[in-house]
Amino acid sequence: MEFDWNGVTHVTKVDPAKPLPGDLGVLAGTDLILVGGSDGVTSENTLDAIGELESAAPDVPVFQEPYSGDHVTRETVERADAVAIPAVYNGDRANFVGKHVDLFTEVARKPEEVLGSSVPFVGDAIREQATEAIVDLVGSLFGEGYVVQNPDATAAATAGVAGTYTPDQVAGAALATEAFYGFPVFYVEYSGTYGGTEDVTAAARYLEETTLLYGGGIDGEKRAREVLEAGADAVVVGDCFHDDPAAFRATIPE
Amino acid sequence: MEFDWNGVTHVTKVDPAKPLPGDLGVLAGTDLILVGGSDGVTSENTLDAIGELESAAPDVPVFQEPYSGDHVTRETVERADAVAIPAVYNGDRANFVGKHVDLFTEVARKPEEVLGSSVPFVGDAIREQATEAIVDLVGSLFGEGYVVQNPDATAAATAGVAGTYTPDQVAGAALATEAFYGFPVFYVEYSGTYGGTEDVTAAARYLEETTLLYGGGIDGEKRAREVLEAGADAVVVGDCFHDDPAAFRATIPE
Repeated sequence: MEFDWNGVTHVTKVDPAKPLPGDLGVLAGTDLILVGGSDGVTSENTLDAIGELESAAPDVPVFQEPYSGDHVTRETVERADAVAIPAVYNGDRANFVGKHVDLFTEVARKPEEVLGSSVPFVGDAIREQATEAIVDLVGSLFGEGYVVQNPDATAAATAGVAGTYTPDQVAGAALATEAFYGFPVFYVEYSGTYGGTEDVTAAARYLEETTLLYGGGIDGEKRAREVLEAGADAVVVGDCFHDDPAAFRATIPE
Repeated sequence: MEFDWNGVTHVTKVDPAKPLPGDLGVLAGTDLILVGGSDGVTSENTLDAIGELESAAPDVPVFQEPYSGDHVTRETVERADAVAIPAVYNGDRANFVGKHVDLFTEVARKPEEVLGSSVPFVGDAIREQATEAIVDLVGSLFGEGYVVQNPDATAAATAGVAGTYTPDQVAGAALATEAFYGFPVFYVEYSGTYGGTEDVTAAARYLEETTLLYGGGIDGEKRAREVLEAGADAVVVGDCFHDDPAAFRATIPE
């Protein structure tokens, strides 16, 4: 997936199961929108949210961030600018590799769906065309190396998180992302609570190519600045986008 | 890890717990040597084997392929040309991500060991130097996306393999390697038995950047050729290297 992460310092996380704020003008100044959530999310409400956000903020890239394979359809993949798929280091097997291989297996064996049902599947040329169409399609998928650090969050239960990571383990997962798994993003997620700067400092030390995102409890300028100064490339702001537009505006760096 | 996989068609897998053949001249024509195994392997016998192989075949790159974190020491990392770490798609969590994060965590928090014990750890400059030393060190580590397809092999038990993959799943794991995890190698491992060409054909369809290795039951020219013609970039030959030098020679493409 080709995307220039340089200059991304503010990410808005939109839960498609929640109503959007009345005035989407608050999005001015955000650099990227992620659409996804744990509760009540479907591919349909994801498509609706992407549509509204694209109309309101046509210059801001809109990525889908699915928490489950059934949020992803050919339509969401084609409609979103990219699909950011969490791989949860401190989750269970399913949430680091299991669901991901299932998704790629499903895509890999449905060339007719990818090409459109009108294409007859005969001969090597068609087979090759189908393979290329699939490679194109998955070209917009990429991984986010996640650590979910709030054990009480729905996201933790959804991802099978058995325990949070120490800052040393966060640093290890960051180094593994940079040097081994090669995901373009490493994401420290405190989901609804503010985690402070310790994990961000630990992770930032080993990330050069990888973009470091921090999310959780960012409710104004102070915390946004704190986390960015500790080494995050961008803050991810979700709750107050839906609940408190003024606070949300204050999280966007000048 | 920078390594040119083009032109690698024959890989020799050496078990450091087994005696090497008397005449290491049989290695002429192999393109790469992997040193590793499941039973009785230690960092010490790994270092011994690397030393002997490097003397006997100075032009052939020698990689360590550890099956457990305790096979890897700073010395093995520095001595081997690279360290190829299996990530087993159809294994348990520990063997796809758990052990790996543990290893990177251990490396990430031992800067003094990496730099040498004589360096005093004071100040930001030293901290930065330590970080760079660690980034350098892990630069020689890379991942191999593995599927272990012989459920009775020691490797399957070691990796917590609960079941083998269908060819569709092998294709999905291959596509995930190419598009998502970004390991430079995808490895179909039949470990001691011959798996035929079905999995290789399924995987090859989706691999462009990724090198496709097949290992298991390659005991002569016929099977080596079969697997290469089905789309493997290279065959991996282990057992007969130790047991039957003439058969081993016959597996090396002209």
